[in-house]
Amino acid sequence: MQIGLVGLGKMGGNMRERLRNAGHTVIGYDTNREVSDVDHLSDLVDRLDGPRVVWVMVPAGAATQLVVDQLGTLLRHGDVVVDGGNSRWTDDEKHAKELHARGIGFVDAGVSGGVWGLKNGYALMVGGDEEHVELLKPIFDALKPDGPYGFVHAGRVGAGHFAKMVHNGIEYAMMQAYAEGWELLERVDSVDNVREVFRSWQEGTVIRSWLLDLAVNALDDDEHLERLRGFAEDSGEGRWTVEAAVENAVPLPAITASLFARFASRQEDSPQMKMVAALRNQFGGHAVESAEKA
Amino acid sequence: MQIGLVGLGKMGGNMRERLRNAGHTVIGYDTNREVSDVDHLSDLVDRLDGPRVVWVMVPAGAATQLVVDQLGTLLRHGDVVVDGGNSRWTDDEKHAKELHARGIGFVDAGVSGGVWGLKNGYALMVGGDEEHVELLKPIFDALKPDGPYGFVHAGRVGAGHFAKMVHNGIEYAMMQAYAEGWELLERVDSVDNVREVFRSWQEGTVIRSWLLDLAVNALDDDEHLERLRGFAEDSGEGRWTVEAAVENAVPLPAITASLFARFASRQEDSPQMKMVAALRNQFGGHAVESAEKA
Amino acid sequence: MQIGLVGLGKMGGNMRERLRNAGHTVIGYDTNREVSDVDHLSDLVDRLDGPRVVWVMVPAGAATQLVVDQLGTLLRHGDVVVDGGNSRWTDDEKHAKELHARGIGFVDAGVSGGVWGLKNGYALMVGGDEEHVELLKPIFDALKPDGPYGFVHAGRVGAGHFAKMVHNGIEYAMMQAYAEGWELLERVDSVDNVREVFRSWQEGTVIRSWLLDLAVNALDDDEHLERLRGFAEDSGEGRWTVEAAVENAVPLPAITASLFARFASRQEDSPQMKMVAALRNQFGGHAVESAEKA
Amino acid sequence: MQIGLVGLGKMGGNMRERLRNAGHTVIGYDTNREVSDVDHLSDLVDRLDGPRVVWVMVPAGAATQLVVDQLGTLLRHGDVVVDGGNSRWTDDEKHAKELHARGIGFVDAGVSGGVWGLKNGYALMVGGDEEHVELLKPIFDALKPDGPYGFVHAGRVGAGHFAKMVHNGIEYAMMQAYAEGWELLERVDSVDNVREVFRSWQEGTVIRSWLLDLAVNALDDDEHLERLRGFAEDSGEGRWTVEAAVENAVPLPAITASLFARFASRQEDSPQMKMVAALRNQFGGHAVESAEKA
Repeated sequence: MQIGLVGLGKMGGNMRERLRNAGHTVIGYDTNREVSDVDHLSDLVDRLDGPRVVWVMVPAGAATQLVVDQLGTLLRHGDVVVDGGNSRWTDDEKHAKELHARGIGFVDAGVSGGVWGLKNGYALMVGGDEEHVELLKPIFDALKPDGPYGFVHAGRVGAGHFAKMVHNGIEYAMMQAYAEGWELLERVDSVDNVREVFRSWQEGTVIRSWLLDLAVNALDDDEHLERLRGFAEDSGEGRWTVEAAVENAVPLPAITASLFARFASRQEDSPQMKMVAALRNQFGGHAVESAEKA
Repeated sequence: MQIGLVGLGKMGGNMRERLRNAGHTVIGYDTNREVSDVDHLSDLVDRLDGPRVVWVMVPAGAATQLVVDQLGTLLRHGDVVVDGGNSRWTDDEKHAKELHARGIGFVDAGVSGGVWGLKNGYALMVGGDEEHVELLKPIFDALKPDGPYGFVHAGRVGAGHFAKMVHNGIEYAMMQAYAEGWELLERVDSVDNVREVFRSWQEGTVIRSWLLDLAVNALDDDEHLERLRGFAEDSGEGRWTVEAAVENAVPLPAITASLFARFASRQEDSPQMKMVAALRNQFGGHAVESAEKA
Repeated sequence: MQIGLVGLGKMGGNMRERLRNAGHTVIGYDTNREVSDVDHLSDLVDRLDGPRVVWVMVPAGAATQLVVDQLGTLLRHGDVVVDGGNSRWTDDEKHAKELHARGIGFVDAGVSGGVWGLKNGYALMVGGDEEHVELLKPIFDALKPDGPYGFVHAGRVGAGHFAKMVHNGIEYAMMQAYAEGWELLERVDSVDNVREVFRSWQEGTVIRSWLLDLAVNALDDDEHLERLRGFAEDSGEGRWTVEAAVENAVPLPAITASLFARFASRQEDSPQMKMVAALRNQFGGHAVESAEKA
Repeated sequence: MQIGLVGLGKMGGNMRERLRNAGHTVIGYDTNREVSDVDHLSDLVDRLDGPRVVWVMVPAGAATQLVVDQLGTLLRHGDVVVDGGNSRWTDDEKHAKELHARGIGFVDAGVSGGVWGLKNGYALMVGGDEEHVELLKPIFDALKPDGPYGFVHAGRVGAGHFAKMVHNGIEYAMMQAYAEGWELLERVDSVDNVREVFRSWQEGTVIRSWLLDLAVNALDDDEHLERLRGFAEDSGEGRWTVEAAVENAVPLPAITASLFARFASRQEDSPQMKMVAALRNQFGGHAVESAEKA
C-alpha cells in the first residue's frame, strides 16, 4: 500500500527501507533534501491516493506538534495520521482531538528496535480506533518482526505510547539491575573474572535476556569499561513513567531508583551531599545559633 | 566418572538423573531411604574410588555444616567436596579451611536452573582452586547446558556462591521491574489489554528475556493474577546481596528496593505506616507536650 | 489594616481570629453563611477601601481558580490577591498572569501551622513582587510566629508555594525516618520499651524535633499504635515535589521512597507483588511457551 | 561516686570533666600519657574501691575488645564494665557473656551529644540488667541533660547500642531529607533565597528541629556550600541499621536510600553507571553476538 513518511533520520530512514523491501510505496519527506523524496510536505500529500496514511517520525514535542498542525490543514476527511515518535501519551490525546475535529484519524505507535529494527523488525505498540488500526495493518505487518510477537493494539489513543513508555521504564530498571550486580562483582576480591560470569549467565539462568547479551558484548569490547565515564543520559520516557506513577499512586521504587541514579551520575558534585557533609561538620562544634535559644 | 551426591530432593534428584544420563556413576545418599542409594553417608564414601568427589546438595546453614563435618572425618587426603547448595559465600571460606586442614579440597558451586535444569542443563558458577575445578570438569560438563554458556570458574573459594548470589539479586530487580510496569499498565484506563502488551514485547524489544516469557505464561494462566495474593517470599541470596553491598559500600538502590518490596508485601498491616498515620493525626490537634516546653 | 478573607474553614477561620486579635479589620466570606461576614463576594470587595487586599484560602485547583476568576472581575487596578491555599506553583504563575492583565497584583503564600497556628503563629513562605509583599507586611507580621523566624519572601510569584511544597516533601521523609526507626525497634526482642526510647531522644540527641515530640505524644496515647491502621494518605505537595524533582533532574530518593511507602500502604493487595509471586511460581515448573522457541 | 574511665579522647575527656563537675571521682586512663591520670590500666583498677565501675570509651571493634579482655582479668566478681563507645549490639552480647563467666557485670550505653554534650549533657540509651543499671544511676544522672529526657534503660544487654544505632539511622534519613529539599530549592529559578527559606522554617513549621538549626548555621557560614565537596562519610551505625533491617525483614527505604547516597557520593566515577552507559551505547549498533544465535 501507499504511505507517506515524515522524518527520515536514522529511524525513519531505516523504516522506509524496510517498508519498501516489503513491497510498499513510501513517499518520504525530510527537511534534509538529500534524503527527502519530495520538496515539500504538501507534495507528499499530493502524491498519495485517499484515504491517505501519513506516518510522522520526528522528535517529540514542538517538532511533532508542527507536523501534526500542518497535516491537519493538508489532509482530508478520512485520512489518518500515525505518530511513531516518542511522544508523551498526553500529546496523543491532544493531537487526536485536533485532527478529529477535521475528520482525520489518529493512531499513536510506540516503536522499539533501534538500529536492529531494519533487519529484525520493530516492536510496535499501537493506540487508536479499531478502524484506523485495521487500515494500517499492512504497514504494521511489514515493520514488525516475523513471528507471533512484536505487535499489539494496546488500547485507545495514547495507549501505544503509554505502553512504550512503560517498556522504557522497565528497561531502566533492568539495566540498573545488571549494572548494580556488575559493580558488586567487580568490587570483591574473590571473583576474578566478572566478564566470564556475565557470559556464563547467557544460558540456563533466570536472568538471561537480550540486555545481558548486550552487556557481554560491551565487556568483550572493554572488559572493565575503562573507556567509559559513569555518566548516563535519560530520555523523556523514563521521567514520564515516574510522573504517571505519581499521578496514579502506583509505587515504582526500582524504576524510580534507576532514573535517580542517572540524574546523580550527571552531577559533577552532588549539592545534596554537600548539605549532608555540612551537617556532619556542624556536629564538630561550631557555635550554633538555634531557633530555640533565640 | 564416579561421584557421590548427598541430598536427593527435587534439585539433587534431578541432577543425579542428568549425570547418569551423561554416563557418570552417581552414588546418592539422602535421609529419605526411598530415594537413597545407600543407607549411610559412610557407605557412599566406601563405594567411591579415590580421589573421591562428593557433591553436597542440602539446605544451606546447619544441614550443610553437618554434612561437611561428617565428610571431613570420612574422606581422605586428596578427596574433594563440592557444595552445590545455596550457601553464603562466607560459609564456603570456613568450610574450605576446615577441610583443607585435613588435606581435603573444597569447591563451591552456585547452581541455577530449577525444574528446567534436568532438561536444559544447570547454569554453574564455581569457586575454588584450579586443580579441584579441573578434576570436576566432567561433572560440570554433564550438568551444564549445551553450548558455550552456562559454566564459569568465577574465582577462588566463595566466588561461585557469590556470583550466584549476585545473579539472584539481579533477578529480584528484574522481577520487580516487570512487576512495576505491569501494575502501572493495569492501572490506567487507556490500555485495555496488558497481557497482549506483555506478549508483544517478546520480540524486537529491549526488554525481551526469559523472565518476560514466564510473565506471559503466568498471564495466560490468570490474566489479571486474581488467583494470587500480593505476597512474595525472599530467600537468603537477596538479603546477602544487600549485606555484601553494605559491607563493600556499593549502592544497590534497585535491588534493595526489590527486597524491601517483598518484605512489605508480607506485612498484614505496616507498623511504620501506623506511625506515619499517627503523626498525621497529631497535626489534627491533640495537646502535645513537647520537650521544649517541659 | 483592612483585608478580605475568602474561605473560612478551619484554617481560614483561625486566621481571621488571629488577624483580628492583632487589630486588623477582616471581612470574611464563605459559602457557609453561618461563618461568613457578608452574603456575596462582591459585598466583601465593596466593603474594602483601595488598594484592596484579598486573601484566598480555599482548596487548591478548581475552587481557587473560580475565586481568582471572580476577583479578576470585581477588583481594580492596584488591588492585590493573595493565594494562601495549597496551590501548585504552576497555578500561581497562571493566576498572576491573568490578574496582571487587569492591573491586579498577585502574591502566593505557603502557610504552615495547622491547628497550632492560631496560638503559635503560622509559618509563611511568600512569592511575588516586592511592592505587593511590602503592602501585605502588616498582615504577614500578624500571622507569623513571634520572633525572628517563620516568614520569608522566597522569590518571585510561585516561590512561596514552591518552598511550602518542598517543606512538605522534607516532612514526608522525616516522618518516614521516625516511622522506619520505630518499626525496627518494635521488631527486636532486646529493646523492651520503645516508647521510652523515643521519649528519651527529646533532649541531647541529633534527632530531636517537633515531629519527635508529636511521635511521643502519639505513643503516649497508644503505646504500640494498635488503634491505627497502617494506612497513610498523601497530599498534592508530596507528589508535586517528586514531579518537580523529575522535571529538574534532581534525585530525591528518600522523599520519593516516603511517598511510595504511602501509596503502597493504601493497597489492599499489591498488584506488583502478585506479579513477583507469579514469576516465582513459574520457576516451580509449569510448561512455558517461550518466545525463543516459538 | 568513683568511676574508672578508659579512653580520654574528645568524648571521653569531656565526659570526665562533666562527671567531675558533678562531684564524682573519675580515674581516667588513656594510652596518651598527657591526658591520662594513671600509667597503666591496672593502676586505674587498683585505685577504685569495689564494687568497681569502669566505663570504656574507645573505638568500637578491636580496641574495645582488647580493653574488655584486659578488664576481664583485672576486675573481680561484682564489678561492672560499661561500654559507652559505638559498638555493634552483637559485640555487647559477646562481651557480656565473656565477663559474666567471671562474675563481672556488663552494661552498654549508646551516647549522643558530641561536642555539645559537655555543656548540654549527653543523651544516654542503656542496655543491661536492672541491678547494674541501678548501680550506675548517679553516673548516668551526671552525664545526661537536665530535665526529664535524655536517658532510657532500653532493655537487656545490647538494647542501648541498638537504640543508638537506630537513632543514627533516623539521623541519616533526616539529614538526607533536608539535603534533598535544599538541592531542589537551589535548582529552581523562582526561589532566590534558599538560606532565608531554611531560616524561616525554624518556627511554626512541621519540620523545625535541631538539625534544621544546624543547617541554617552551615548556610550562614557558606550560603551555597561552595567550600564543601559533595562527599559524605558513613559510620558503622548506618550500615548496621540496614543489616538489622535485612535480618528482621523490616523495609527501611528512606534510611537505606540515605546510606546509598553517601556511598555514591564517595565514588569518583560510578562503575554501575558505566555499565548503564555501555548498554545504551550497545543500542547504537555494534554487532552483538547473542546467546540465542550462538
